[in-house]
Amino acid sequence: MKATLELVDAAMRFEGRNERGQSTSFDADPAVGGRDSAARPMEVLLQAVMACTAMDVLSIVRKKRRTVIAFRIVAEAERAAEHPKVFTRIHLRYELTSPDAAEQDLYRAIELSQGTYCSASIMVRRSGCSITWEAHVLRPEGPGVVVG
Amino acid sequence: MKATLELVDAAMRFEGRNERGQSTSFDADPAVGGRDSAARPMEVLLQAVMACTAMDVLSIVRKKRRTVIAFRIVAEAERAAEHPKVFTRIHLRYELTSPDAAEQDLYRAIELSQGTYCSASIMVRRSGCSITWEAHVLRPEGPGVVVG
Repeated sequence: MKATLELVDAAMRFEGRNERGQSTSFDADPAVGGRDSAARPMEVLLQAVMACTAMDVLSIVRKKRRTVIAFRIVAEAERAAEHPKVFTRIHLRYELTSPDAAEQDLYRAIELSQGTYCSASIMVRRSGCSITWEAHVLRPEGPGVVVG
Repeated sequence: MKATLELVDAAMRFEGRNERGQSTSFDADPAVGGRDSAARPMEVLLQAVMACTAMDVLSIVRKKRRTVIAFRIVAEAERAAEHPKVFTRIHLRYELTSPDAAEQDLYRAIELSQGTYCSASIMVRRSGCSITWEAHVLRPEGPGVVVG
């Protein structure tokens, strides 16, 4: 995998680019010379971990032919007080809205992701950060509206 | 730190959001059910590592009152062949365009970032992935034009 990252203003805004030209933006806090025009690198790293496990879970739930009305993850992360300010603890709350998925379907999908497939979560755990999670299946109210 | 990640189409596009509402997009390959409308989670994770160290290096170089005309990082990353497909090796090429920075200024800044400050790089290294780097100071051709 190749990537480039380029400074794109006179302060601290950077644009990352993958091999297909798709970009991701980063900026710093004004207190350290940025303009707060985009997320911080460690915020984006956390969201990349969330997206990695989210895609695993969604794939597995859909392979079981469960209907996905909505899906989200809410994360809380703690960092070390001193440099390097690594993540020390991440808690993920998975929320699947589905008329037909059982809690067990979601639990099993998360276990497979966190234990076997999710490269990002497993790297974070190997770095010494704990990852805990909880899972909730919500029933849609009224007629289900498919997201997107 | 808090973050949310939400499915925003009927396929695999996710939008991450930080506490200030700034968003970052992710999508999957069509081969696994995505629409390739944004970068993959592991691509974004790599770019977050690059942005984290880039901001350190830029801060340190500017504190030494060196002029920054342009700054970029080019990365190559290798992943494990089997699940979990963690990064096993990352090589970073730092390129600073400056009329007055010495190579030693850039080297020292990278050493400080990689050894002490860059939370993302240090987490990746602690996970078992090697990070190597090279540094290049380029002289601007003709009159320097400040980026941004």
